[in-house]
Amino acid sequence: MTRQRLTPDERRTQLLTIGAQLFSERPYEDVWIEEVAERAGVSRGLMYHYFSSKRDFFAAIVRVAVDRILRDTEPDPALPVQDQITHGLDAYLTFVRENQPSVRALNRGELSADTEIRDMVDAELAEQQRRILVALGSGPGQDAVLEASIHGWIAFVRAVVVDWIETDALTEDQVRDLCLRALNGLIGTGSIDTVDVGAS
Amino acid sequence: MTRQRLTPDERRTQLLTIGAQLFSERPYEDVWIEEVAERAGVSRGLMYHYFSSKRDFFAAIVRVAVDRILRDTEPDPALPVQDQITHGLDAYLTFVRENQPSVRALNRGELSADTEIRDMVDAELAEQQRRILVALGSGPGQDAVLEASIHGWIAFVRAVVVDWIETDALTEDQVRDLCLRALNGLIGTGSIDTVDVGAS
Repeated sequence: MTRQRLTPDERRTQLLTIGAQLFSERPYEDVWIEEVAERAGVSRGLMYHYFSSKRDFFAAIVRVAVDRILRDTEPDPALPVQDQITHGLDAYLTFVRENQPSVRALNRGELSADTEIRDMVDAELAEQQRRILVALGSGPGQDAVLEASIHGWIAFVRAVVVDWIETDALTEDQVRDLCLRALNGLIGTGSIDTVDVGAS
Repeated sequence: MTRQRLTPDERRTQLLTIGAQLFSERPYEDVWIEEVAERAGVSRGLMYHYFSSKRDFFAAIVRVAVDRILRDTEPDPALPVQDQITHGLDAYLTFVRENQPSVRALNRGELSADTEIRDMVDAELAEQQRRILVALGSGPGQDAVLEASIHGWIAFVRAVVVDWIETDALTEDQVRDLCLRALNGLIGTGSIDTVDVGAS
């Protein structure tokens, strides 16, 4: 196997891309640093030069994923508030569907207890919360009840998504519908359409 | 200080009672094993004979608290389903109000990442979920959408309760009302009274 000549940044990105692919296909336990190195055509030693452990490698992949999901779920302030929220939810559900093993690893076992990884996930959720508050014409620190509603709703979405990816008992549309029903109970007057919009 | 003569079981219970009291008054970091020993009139060595570390001591207190909360929130099948759920919620909110520092410790930092402690809390939440499903005429494994709703709702309650005890911005009645509004959005037709029942 010949090693491609890449700059350190390119090499790092290449390793992260290969890792993200593997972690999106298999449980955390079944991904091996050695295989990532082999697919990249680099030595195990070089791999460890970039990432000191499998956990560090995974944390770096989570960092990239968090940036991506925040970009993918960026609300468009020109849209009605309902659409901003449903588009954000749909982008999140799409991300989860395409990255089930990683989302599973993030939500259970030792990785879910890892402080650095938890902090990244919590920061992402805090940003989603802030965006929803802004879309609703509010903001952090302005309306404690609304803020707690959205904080609770995000916890709701996360719990239901875990059920979705841990069992075969729910469809993506059912998850979406549940999330929107809970949100309507909190802030809505039935104005957010819960029927079938997610099937597109 | 004279040491009371107690059986080992009585001594253990005494130490746990003193600990539960201290942990209900102060942040986890500000409770010292030495003070517990002193209040019980025993040596630090004897204290460590019963509990090998502060973390083990706290875990034993959580075990007692989980048993107590499950007893306090036991539903009465003779009541209408709405009352079973609201009584369970009220008992939980009362427990949280009376044990704020412990609940805070359970929901953040190193203790929230501790596997044994997480497992105890998760088992308690799973039992609450099972009870609500039974009250609603269902049960685990029978209706995936309803089960995910209740799982998500419990995550919602937990997140809102954290907001309540971490900030001074919410009242207990607001928390209760939010929880019931979310539940109505999921399973209700407005049949659960969300107004002021919690003020009693």
